[in-house]
Amino acid sequence: MVVVMDGRASAEQVEAVIMRLEECGFSAHPIYGVRRIVIGAVGDRRVLNSLGLETMPGVERVVPIMKPYKLVSREAREENTVVRVGHVAIGGSQLAVIAGPCAVESREQLLAAAYMVQQAGAAILRGGAFKPRTSPYSFQGLGEEGLKLLAEAARQTGLATVTEVVDEHSLELAVEYVDMLQVGARNMQNFRLLQMVGRSGKPVLLKRGLSATVEEWLMAAEYIMSEGNGQIVLCERGIRTFEHSTRNTLDLSAVPLVKSLSHLPVIVDPSHATGDRRLVGPMARAAVAAGADGLLIEVHPEPTQALCDGPQSLTPAQFVSLMEELRAVAAAVGRAA
Amino acid sequence: MVVVMDGRASAEQVEAVIMRLEECGFSAHPIYGVRRIVIGAVGDRRVLNSLGLETMPGVERVVPIMKPYKLVSREAREENTVVRVGHVAIGGSQLAVIAGPCAVESREQLLAAAYMVQQAGAAILRGGAFKPRTSPYSFQGLGEEGLKLLAEAARQTGLATVTEVVDEHSLELAVEYVDMLQVGARNMQNFRLLQMVGRSGKPVLLKRGLSATVEEWLMAAEYIMSEGNGQIVLCERGIRTFEHSTRNTLDLSAVPLVKSLSHLPVIVDPSHATGDRRLVGPMARAAVAAGADGLLIEVHPEPTQALCDGPQSLTPAQFVSLMEELRAVAAAVGRAA
Amino acid sequence: MVVVMDGRASAEQVEAVIMRLEECGFSAHPIYGVRRIVIGAVGDRRVLNSLGLETMPGVERVVPIMKPYKLVSREAREENTVVRVGHVAIGGSQLAVIAGPCAVESREQLLAAAYMVQQAGAAILRGGAFKPRTSPYSFQGLGEEGLKLLAEAARQTGLATVTEVVDEHSLELAVEYVDMLQVGARNMQNFRLLQMVGRSGKPVLLKRGLSATVEEWLMAAEYIMSEGNGQIVLCERGIRTFEHSTRNTLDLSAVPLVKSLSHLPVIVDPSHATGDRRLVGPMARAAVAAGADGLLIEVHPEPTQALCDGPQSLTPAQFVSLMEELRAVAAAVGRAA
Amino acid sequence: MVVVMDGRASAEQVEAVIMRLEECGFSAHPIYGVRRIVIGAVGDRRVLNSLGLETMPGVERVVPIMKPYKLVSREAREENTVVRVGHVAIGGSQLAVIAGPCAVESREQLLAAAYMVQQAGAAILRGGAFKPRTSPYSFQGLGEEGLKLLAEAARQTGLATVTEVVDEHSLELAVEYVDMLQVGARNMQNFRLLQMVGRSGKPVLLKRGLSATVEEWLMAAEYIMSEGNGQIVLCERGIRTFEHSTRNTLDLSAVPLVKSLSHLPVIVDPSHATGDRRLVGPMARAAVAAGADGLLIEVHPEPTQALCDGPQSLTPAQFVSLMEELRAVAAAVGRAA
Repeated sequence: MVVVMDGRASAEQVEAVIMRLEECGFSAHPIYGVRRIVIGAVGDRRVLNSLGLETMPGVERVVPIMKPYKLVSREAREENTVVRVGHVAIGGSQLAVIAGPCAVESREQLLAAAYMVQQAGAAILRGGAFKPRTSPYSFQGLGEEGLKLLAEAARQTGLATVTEVVDEHSLELAVEYVDMLQVGARNMQNFRLLQMVGRSGKPVLLKRGLSATVEEWLMAAEYIMSEGNGQIVLCERGIRTFEHSTRNTLDLSAVPLVKSLSHLPVIVDPSHATGDRRLVGPMARAAVAAGADGLLIEVHPEPTQALCDGPQSLTPAQFVSLMEELRAVAAAVGRAA
Repeated sequence: MVVVMDGRASAEQVEAVIMRLEECGFSAHPIYGVRRIVIGAVGDRRVLNSLGLETMPGVERVVPIMKPYKLVSREAREENTVVRVGHVAIGGSQLAVIAGPCAVESREQLLAAAYMVQQAGAAILRGGAFKPRTSPYSFQGLGEEGLKLLAEAARQTGLATVTEVVDEHSLELAVEYVDMLQVGARNMQNFRLLQMVGRSGKPVLLKRGLSATVEEWLMAAEYIMSEGNGQIVLCERGIRTFEHSTRNTLDLSAVPLVKSLSHLPVIVDPSHATGDRRLVGPMARAAVAAGADGLLIEVHPEPTQALCDGPQSLTPAQFVSLMEELRAVAAAVGRAA
Repeated sequence: MVVVMDGRASAEQVEAVIMRLEECGFSAHPIYGVRRIVIGAVGDRRVLNSLGLETMPGVERVVPIMKPYKLVSREAREENTVVRVGHVAIGGSQLAVIAGPCAVESREQLLAAAYMVQQAGAAILRGGAFKPRTSPYSFQGLGEEGLKLLAEAARQTGLATVTEVVDEHSLELAVEYVDMLQVGARNMQNFRLLQMVGRSGKPVLLKRGLSATVEEWLMAAEYIMSEGNGQIVLCERGIRTFEHSTRNTLDLSAVPLVKSLSHLPVIVDPSHATGDRRLVGPMARAAVAAGADGLLIEVHPEPTQALCDGPQSLTPAQFVSLMEELRAVAAAVGRAA
Repeated sequence: MVVVMDGRASAEQVEAVIMRLEECGFSAHPIYGVRRIVIGAVGDRRVLNSLGLETMPGVERVVPIMKPYKLVSREAREENTVVRVGHVAIGGSQLAVIAGPCAVESREQLLAAAYMVQQAGAAILRGGAFKPRTSPYSFQGLGEEGLKLLAEAARQTGLATVTEVVDEHSLELAVEYVDMLQVGARNMQNFRLLQMVGRSGKPVLLKRGLSATVEEWLMAAEYIMSEGNGQIVLCERGIRTFEHSTRNTLDLSAVPLVKSLSHLPVIVDPSHATGDRRLVGPMARAAVAAGADGLLIEVHPEPTQALCDGPQSLTPAQFVSLMEELRAVAAAVGRAA
């Protein structure tokens, strides 16, 4: 950490900061510039927030040097983590495609979707049983009934499954029925939920929050991993910006950036990011070219009848054709799909 | 709702949209423009999302006309709602000041803060017992012990109290000890939590999410109110923008805007918005001038020793002097403080 | 356009809006809903702003239906525009790579860069002679001397050239020496400059502004095209968002979106978008996979010695290797490179 | 400046950075932490960008310590600058209100507006003669004819005047007719224009760009001041964020922040910020309470007939009543109005 003193700070104020640092176990290294004194401090960043340095007289600001996350960092582990979801590996040489409807709506709908995505080459089936919806008047999901349908679809098709959990109740149910738990964007900083999925032992799909920085996203993963669960897949799904001509702004640069900062796999959800099925294909191809380890794609047997997110769901035919395109792009960047 | 057809839509496609609307109970009113057909549709906006119109061939986009919230809207209730927290009214002619430390740290700290803010003219004491922290390694709050201290401070000073709840467990405890429940910015779209505070019957302080639109914020209030609890105070606390020279960007325009859209009271938290105690005073004065019904201000007996958010906490002397300034500004806009 | 009346608007207010519309040559189509009256209006969107409808009593808001741009729209021209820059075509089946240093610094530097990018397969040489810099104390470019060096490099290597213009003076000089004029992000809404490049008759590379919506970007192109110059290439270069771990957020979704809205070619600048050479390669590959017609890439013979934007410039070796990767990705999406 | 080395940097890499710093006239102070070496460097920040340190092997990032602006900084001048516009002082104890129509439309309109705002207590008349418009098809201003009308209105009412300049031509005309030159938000980083107004010797009203950070805004002022012109008034007019329920997000925190960083006066434009006349009053009051030195307010004799920005223009009666409210708030914060 570096403490930047105000240009008008007195010698006593500088001395007080140095003493405070040393009291708290840091070693302090003042550097006397022409117009500023800065104090380098060597010690544990994790106690930084409780030092109160910014509030001391004469301090202009405090610049952290170390990253606040540790277990999830590339420094903690050089090699890529490969997460196992059932028989599927995410983070290895094979691109992992997760596909299915936004919400589980009925047995017919889910089985039709499952067979279709399995034949097209997807490895994992998605489907929401507990839907966090902006409006209390929207369809909120089938609950446990939806989980049972996911389990049935898994048995019939051999696909692994993932579903979103939103609280203790849904988590306790989901661990019985599915292979992977999803924490949604709106819950990325629901720290109690992060601790609970951390203790569940199940692989976790952690979506980036709508306005989460890359650092906050990795800190959310650190919450899970600090509970002993390192089976985490990060999912970029678009951030909120001034541009509303797409639902969100897909931040694809985050893919190579996060892979340089962390050993965890990163996948991309072009469906929620764009909110428009015409953009899903180009963005899915771009994600693979950027180095994503997988994709999360909404597919619905009949998007026009979907109870949620119809406009962004691919039809079966569109999904089949996208999978072919993805195989070509994956091969071009040295990956199997 | 208005459905805008693509310039190249066929007569059959227009007809199909009209049939779909009428099937779902809407009346359809096509308008034939020079280059576009648009179809006005009269009916219940709340079923809009499940119509799947955007996915129909020939549809360019769907423009909602009605607002998605209902119970919290000014149309549902013309007069201002006044929320009662203990003996304190929020939303009436009197400015309501909520003050206290970010976190309850100890009996000494909390009682010192409570007596001080009470003497300076605050009406409600704040203090976090369950702290949602970005890092799993930061101080997470005293839990029930903190709630007991809040209750003791309330007994001794006569102040009403508010504390943040983060899950079912903290909620069940908090209802026993405090007068008002706070839902924090990171949980504004934790819909399960919104339903639970809605059912609790306690007054709720609902902070705006970091990247929540005004409409989403009101929809979060609608979640609470649709559970039968209309005792909601909205709190603007800064939104996330590209500008990082303050912690967040305080969106004061939201105060008069929300008051025109909704009957609920609106207060402002200049401490979290700016993250810098030097800006708290000017922004508190501005909030009152903009028409806010109250303020939420962090005060700490010794900010330098604070376990959380020291840099934005006022000292007791600063708070006393701010309260005097606020009385002058409140009087200038016709309000008591 | 659709005029949404307030729920409490009187019959007289509705009538007044209808009269105003008809006075101005619109035909008005009122639709009577349960809680709202909306008035569909058919006429010329371009006079919309001068109608003052939002200011009339009883009007809640006005929703435009038609897009505000015309000449650049896909509706005005179904087929893709191919822009010719010297002997190079942008917008056809061949990927067009523009490369070179941020700024022209010296004859040695520029010629070394030019030979190198030409051998690696670039088609157009970039180099700034007039640099818009955030600080008045930074290097501002070599001016006409830089243009002469660009012309010399073009003669020696056969590359076409592009350079940024910032005002009338630089424009008058640049048209003498280079094949294509660039309008930078900070000048995207410098409307006088847009008109001037429109009248110049030269092909124009129009960068998206840091906070420009897709619609504003297309309106800037409309300014150029309304002066009779349709030789416009749009360049996505990242937008400003809350996320500062990359310099800007590359909005790749804008590529397929703009190509659906407009007939103009779209290229991508991953260098300025990310500000970090380690991310340039992945984002360049992603841009091609998303359907970009070309790339703008900073390359410097010795990035460590660059007078501007060294951290994002590729070394010659990195550029050679990137070009190979791009050929593979381009082939995978059916394009030559 | 502080150079943070990568955790895996070699001793040779550290040595190379130290040599590079010393070559360029910096003194280097390495600090050896547990997992990182950081190098404090003392020297001239203004050459920082040309050092290329970020591109050197083993460097993780470079953290600037000194602010990049100098002449406009509070450190360069402790006391507040008071800018004189005709007989009006901006930045002193008196609140300065600039008011008038968005665009000069006719002699009748401008004179009516001028008399009215003068009687209500405004000190400076605004009116655009050269309008930068998003659409090439919108009204672009009366040009020199508009400037003549401004000069006539000034003679008749005794008001000082301000108008926007957009290029060399409009600047040369405007200096003949008005007392103060405005640089609009879209031109805040039109560096040539900044240099030209700097050389004009006229007082300058510098609006903040839509997506400009406070630092960039101050750097734009530095451009003007480095040309010898320190008569600069900064104007906050809202920034672009995800929230579109107001046209922009008025960043009022920037007022006290900029006043702490710079000696220049700061005023606020609530009309462009909100785009909605119903929010202009509350935000004008809030700006004064936050410490703004003045306001820029759109007023039109007949907003319904305005050729531009009618929805945000106050009527004469609304302006008169706002001025009364402002006097009360100004008095409450110790200021005359």
